[in-house]
Amino acid sequence: MSLTESTPESAARAASIAARTLAVLPVSARNDALTTMHDALLANKGAILAANAQDMAQATQASKSGQLSQSVLKRLDLSRPGKYDDMLSGILDVRRLDDPIGQVDLRTRLDDGLELERVSCPIGVLLIIFEARPEVIANIAALAIKSGNAAILKGGKESSHSFETIAKVIGAALEATQVPNAAVQLVKTRDVIDQLLDLDRYIDLVIPRGGNELVRYVKDHTKIPVLGHADGLCSIYLHRDADKDVAVKVVVDAKCDYPAACNAAETLLVHEAILTTVLPAVAEVLLAKGVSLRCDAKSKAALQESLAPSSAALVQDATEEDYNTEFLDLTLAVKTVPASTSKGEGLTNGLRDAESGEDDTSLDLAIAHINTHGSKHTDCIVTASSVAAEKFMSAVDAAGVYWNASTRFADGMRYGFGTEVGISTNKIHSRGPVGLEGLTIYKYKLRGHGQAAAEYGDGKKRYKHEKLAP
Amino acid sequence: MSLTESTPESAARAASIAARTLAVLPVSARNDALTTMHDALLANKGAILAANAQDMAQATQASKSGQLSQSVLKRLDLSRPGKYDDMLSGILDVRRLDDPIGQVDLRTRLDDGLELERVSCPIGVLLIIFEARPEVIANIAALAIKSGNAAILKGGKESSHSFETIAKVIGAALEATQVPNAAVQLVKTRDVIDQLLDLDRYIDLVIPRGGNELVRYVKDHTKIPVLGHADGLCSIYLHRDADKDVAVKVVVDAKCDYPAACNAAETLLVHEAILTTVLPAVAEVLLAKGVSLRCDAKSKAALQESLAPSSAALVQDATEEDYNTEFLDLTLAVKTVPASTSKGEGLTNGLRDAESGEDDTSLDLAIAHINTHGSKHTDCIVTASSVAAEKFMSAVDAAGVYWNASTRFADGMRYGFGTEVGISTNKIHSRGPVGLEGLTIYKYKLRGHGQAAAEYGDGKKRYKHEKLAP
Repeated sequence: MSLTESTPESAARAASIAARTLAVLPVSARNDALTTMHDALLANKGAILAANAQDMAQATQASKSGQLSQSVLKRLDLSRPGKYDDMLSGILDVRRLDDPIGQVDLRTRLDDGLELERVSCPIGVLLIIFEARPEVIANIAALAIKSGNAAILKGGKESSHSFETIAKVIGAALEATQVPNAAVQLVKTRDVIDQLLDLDRYIDLVIPRGGNELVRYVKDHTKIPVLGHADGLCSIYLHRDADKDVAVKVVVDAKCDYPAACNAAETLLVHEAILTTVLPAVAEVLLAKGVSLRCDAKSKAALQESLAPSSAALVQDATEEDYNTEFLDLTLAVKTVPASTSKGEGLTNGLRDAESGEDDTSLDLAIAHINTHGSKHTDCIVTASSVAAEKFMSAVDAAGVYWNASTRFADGMRYGFGTEVGISTNKIHSRGPVGLEGLTIYKYKLRGHGQAAAEYGDGKKRYKHEKLAP
Repeated sequence: MSLTESTPESAARAASIAARTLAVLPVSARNDALTTMHDALLANKGAILAANAQDMAQATQASKSGQLSQSVLKRLDLSRPGKYDDMLSGILDVRRLDDPIGQVDLRTRLDDGLELERVSCPIGVLLIIFEARPEVIANIAALAIKSGNAAILKGGKESSHSFETIAKVIGAALEATQVPNAAVQLVKTRDVIDQLLDLDRYIDLVIPRGGNELVRYVKDHTKIPVLGHADGLCSIYLHRDADKDVAVKVVVDAKCDYPAACNAAETLLVHEAILTTVLPAVAEVLLAKGVSLRCDAKSKAALQESLAPSSAALVQDATEEDYNTEFLDLTLAVKTVPASTSKGEGLTNGLRDAESGEDDTSLDLAIAHINTHGSKHTDCIVTASSVAAEKFMSAVDAAGVYWNASTRFADGMRYGFGTEVGISTNKIHSRGPVGLEGLTIYKYKLRGHGQAAAEYGDGKKRYKHEKLAP
């Protein structure tokens, strides 16, 4: 890794040349680089934590004067118990993962002696723009090296001492490896984001890691493909046959486990038939945990009828805007899904459910609400009916569609991908938590013996198109 | 299919709603729609060819006055032998292909009773902008319906009579099927491309089918992901051990089979050692076929020495610009790759080849030339050495990397994908010829029993991450 003070353009050009070397390094060489990087970060823990303390001191000042939020301060702190070790073990986790490069997923014999193969390969040069968390730099460097991609890193100013020290340590360590120096670069110069976003001839993919504002800014200012998500407006729908205990467990975890996360629930849709049975049990626990419930008229009336007066008094009125809001806080918008069979606005499909014979107008309304108001991140149905669940999971257009499980499971580590570069709500390439595989593309290799395309066609040779085992 | 005269925005909104219904139709319903479409196009051949004749009459006029090229005129003509039947059989080919939707490619047991599945699903709404060829509309409608995607089609003005008639026929036929009317729409209104390109909230992917100018325009004027390629600058490298017959066959086919195609060869790199052995044999056939050879000084000198004077006189001088030019014509840029072992400019890697023990500086120079000047479409090496071939195929960054086979094989039909929506030089999502699979994305389905993410972690439940057969 180099800590570059050069122009964004020369950094990107150097990265694109280094990417070619990195792309053909065997996995042993890439894994060795990760080991070296891990050992160097372990050996230099003291220096890195000292640099981080400098950042923390400045940030604490800024926090006291109200210029920096407590949550940024918390994310910045590398000395919190377990944090440094997690960073180190994350590198080893990535090293242990299967090589994502060189995987053959299609083989076809076009003709005798003419074989086609589709093989995974690195994308090229990644630009990663991130905010305060200093451990991200090690995490991303590990993912980039393992996946054979060059990476240009641009970090937030709050962590600049930590970043620089970590970059120097990693850079010095990689000197002894086969990974070219320019393959991982930390751009130090400030205010260069726009210039970097303009370098589509060198940079193949941008991954913004930060809040909605950063992601939106990046998406609006570049022609380079952007991997990530601006919003995480996750919804949970409690169907008429939702089990009460499952509903409580799933909703409470999805809302309260980490309210600031993109996979936390923001909207609760409740079937009219269970407004006074399941909903009060869910609401009681949520209110006890300090969650503000913003309810439509029907659900509010039902709660005021069912809850103890002290709890009922806490229930608030929802506005239309609440159903389009990612609160990232202990607030939940609640909306009733009518049981009526009349076709409502936004109804996707009023047909009777073929298997259950049930009229599933309510399910359709819930699906339509989510497809209209959601952010295609992760949405959940709580139901005892597999027919309803399968329909929900097919029809909701989101990266994650869950049945009786908390939306908080939307995470690369939880999915078993090792670490993740982020969660994508894109409709192409990678969707949901993105691990190593999402940092690859493929190429078609064709091995022949001098065949000409003109030899094939009507009245000439015919293609065999024989599928072979990959 | 509807033939819409409504605004681009209302067309796109209607398509995005129709896409939700189409996305959950079983494959039987999607295939039935293709059969119906096929039968209607067969039954209405007379009317469609009459409309096409109107377009042809206008285009012939325009061609005579020099406003339209002969090649556009040719592409426009639906009455050429076999063309109409090809359009019809293309629909049946798509019908026969495996359902690209609902394919599970990953299954993981996160814990007992908590199973994750990755399932292919449609992308959503496609915008296809195309030029003259009228059969594309049937082709694209078939691909869109089969892959469960809604499509908005905007065709070139030269084919407007043909397009309208085909759209009416398909639209009337689809009325009797489960495919919603708004799922495939032909936008008739002119000059709406910019408005369509602005509708990123409804449209998920743009596929421009036409010349470089169209593709560049689209890429420069939208935030919607674009699938396709602007350039097809394909190169062939004749390594020092290239077989003469293979070289002749591959280069002649790649240059002459269809020079206007994106997968035709534009640059020929020749190892210095075979300038007077293999190159003259290749050049002789090319010159006889009317190909202009634009050569660097060394290759020109070698040809003048080796060829008969009458042929030698035809050899031209290359300019630097020729090595960055997609001629799309019977012109080929020829460049010598030095045999010298001194590190040249743009050298990727001067190491000795580990397996062969050969110094492969020349190979590195050829690879570096292609990675610098090529368009990442399809490139080929002609060599007897599998070591050199495998290195070339790993290190060249292109959608197709070929060994001893013509670049003209880069085609969805030839790859066995059935029909194709185009060839992509993108670095994410789909690369190379894009068939049905490239029109899909996936979603993660998680089926649980009320699990909360907070139950897992240090000192709590552990994830099993058991890989299951898909």
